[in-house]
Amino acid sequence: MSPAASAIVSSFTLFPIKSSSSITSTKTKSLSNKTFLRFPSLSFNKTPNHIRSAVSIEKETPETERPHTFLRESDDDGAPSSSSSSSSSSSVRSRFEKMIREAQDSVCEAIEGVDGGGAKFKEDVWSRPGGGGGISRVLQDGAVWEKAGVNVSVVYGVMPPEAYRAATASAQQKPGPVPFFAAGISSVLHPKNPFAPTLHFNYRYFETDAPKDVPGAPRQWWFGGGTDLTPAYIFEEDVKHFHSHRGERRGLGGIFFDDLNDYDQGMLLSFATECANSVVPAYIPIIEKRKDIPFTDQHKAWQQVRRGRYVEFNLVYDRGTTFGLKTGGRIESILVSLPLTARWEYDHKPEEGSEEWKLLDACINPKEWI
Amino acid sequence: MSPAASAIVSSFTLFPIKSSSSITSTKTKSLSNKTFLRFPSLSFNKTPNHIRSAVSIEKETPETERPHTFLRESDDDGAPSSSSSSSSSSSVRSRFEKMIREAQDSVCEAIEGVDGGGAKFKEDVWSRPGGGGGISRVLQDGAVWEKAGVNVSVVYGVMPPEAYRAATASAQQKPGPVPFFAAGISSVLHPKNPFAPTLHFNYRYFETDAPKDVPGAPRQWWFGGGTDLTPAYIFEEDVKHFHSHRGERRGLGGIFFDDLNDYDQGMLLSFATECANSVVPAYIPIIEKRKDIPFTDQHKAWQQVRRGRYVEFNLVYDRGTTFGLKTGGRIESILVSLPLTARWEYDHKPEEGSEEWKLLDACINPKEWI
Repeated sequence: MSPAASAIVSSFTLFPIKSSSSITSTKTKSLSNKTFLRFPSLSFNKTPNHIRSAVSIEKETPETERPHTFLRESDDDGAPSSSSSSSSSSSVRSRFEKMIREAQDSVCEAIEGVDGGGAKFKEDVWSRPGGGGGISRVLQDGAVWEKAGVNVSVVYGVMPPEAYRAATASAQQKPGPVPFFAAGISSVLHPKNPFAPTLHFNYRYFETDAPKDVPGAPRQWWFGGGTDLTPAYIFEEDVKHFHSHRGERRGLGGIFFDDLNDYDQGMLLSFATECANSVVPAYIPIIEKRKDIPFTDQHKAWQQVRRGRYVEFNLVYDRGTTFGLKTGGRIESILVSLPLTARWEYDHKPEEGSEEWKLLDACINPKEWI
Repeated sequence: MSPAASAIVSSFTLFPIKSSSSITSTKTKSLSNKTFLRFPSLSFNKTPNHIRSAVSIEKETPETERPHTFLRESDDDGAPSSSSSSSSSSSVRSRFEKMIREAQDSVCEAIEGVDGGGAKFKEDVWSRPGGGGGISRVLQDGAVWEKAGVNVSVVYGVMPPEAYRAATASAQQKPGPVPFFAAGISSVLHPKNPFAPTLHFNYRYFETDAPKDVPGAPRQWWFGGGTDLTPAYIFEEDVKHFHSHRGERRGLGGIFFDDLNDYDQGMLLSFATECANSVVPAYIPIIEKRKDIPFTDQHKAWQQVRRGRYVEFNLVYDRGTTFGLKTGGRIESILVSLPLTARWEYDHKPEEGSEEWKLLDACINPKEWI
């Protein structure tokens, strides 16, 4: 993620949101009733998770159809409808999957709409033998978009002990490898026009099993995600529009959070849902306004240099990218975030006071936009 | 480094070379006599290395002139001329620096010569307050070259214990941070014509101090480096030419070695020198032959996709790049290896049997070229 114009917010307490326990009632049940059992041979498999997970890092296989769910059957039985608990693990897993798949649909629809009817998303559906899978969608070389990628994925994997310790500061004992579940939506949208900003967003939900060899160590879960705007040129009104959603729907724009687990799971799920649903209203109006502004070769070259910087951040530092590559994720899906084209000029320095310099200055010296 | 068309050779014993102890005699002395003392305030500084090293990670400062050496004065007093030892630490340091600076000059001269007289290398000289520095040279957007970078650097730093243990398998005890010295030449040459291959080479010399807190643990030193050719299209005769240097000067072309320390230091220095000196004859004739071949937009787009792949390897996996970024190296010098332009198409797959497919096939299934 680029630091451009994105406020780093490390504490959930900055975002007062309405409790939303209503979401926990019937939806889960109706989803689980529709569940498509893709792995009948595993249906009654009693192999413990931490053994099965070792298989789940296998190579992904393409699917011809979108399944109703990528969850393992054992995860997808939902909470009993009579249960008032909003923290049932399988329930949160399946509700989170439903949320990110709906968000993928609505964002892709909006992106195609802006592009004007010509370019369409290409879709790849894939799954893994041990459970999990994803839907990658890419629109490339459209009228408005250079490259727009919107992915959802559901992953069952095994986390190295270091990663688990890093993620869960409380466990001081050294655990063995820890099975995990992760589901998320991740997107990077690169427009063609240098005056139209790039957007990145991702929202994700993690769970780890309780480590078997550390008695008493708890199962862990957390939410993470964020949305950030990366312009090549600054239009203050655009950045204000993007952040001003914070006025109406506090915390929705230029935000980042991780390791969120100190509130009710249903409440955090609702928070993540609201964040994901705010992507379209926060971003699309900016694109509509900027997509047809005339530009010169110099403007385009500067955008390409910023795209190069974006690639650096993405490949060297981005937590999602490096985690994905290190845990054997689907490479083409992970790297869909890279722009179609980029440029690296040695020691490029914009002239002081120029529009290009102002952008760089804002990246180096964070501002309060509203 | 890209795996394309490069043979990975892990053992020095594959390269019989002449012993070259003659190189150890007078040259060192004459170099040390000419030494330019850039840090007079440190001249008689008796602070131990492991303290001074903590300072040396400071931000680099630009220099207006190339100093005679980037070594700390204490390193540059050379071996006594009467000594027949070829393993004097300061002697090897200063001879290696001299070698890489001469190689930089000769490679840059050859590159400018091919480009035809128009484009020239831009040079940046930099140093660090605690000792060390480098010379970065970049030729950008020339007639033949899209981007050609040739850097030398001399670094005094502190290696995290993990890096030291990884580098020196013998030390089982956990040491504290270990001061190190590293000098190297590193270059990536990206031509414009898609039929003219990219070349990467680097040659480096490392030393670590004996860890103070692990009694008996030795000082370590090793040589590393390699040269590899990364074409976007395969001309078998070019690849054979590149590797056929192995016939004349065995091991000089499509090679990689690291952690070389099991031979006489002077002999290994001579091996590294021969490798560096073979870059021009192995590569320039290929460029002369391919630089003016007519090409289509499709050829250019394929080259750009391969450049994108090169960026991935470089930023995610390249040992030199990641080491440089993690130890606070000069970012613009490290990333000069990136091409001027690159392209990422989602899930790009060349048609089976096409020229593009043949290249990909050769990257996936290594070949014996001669």
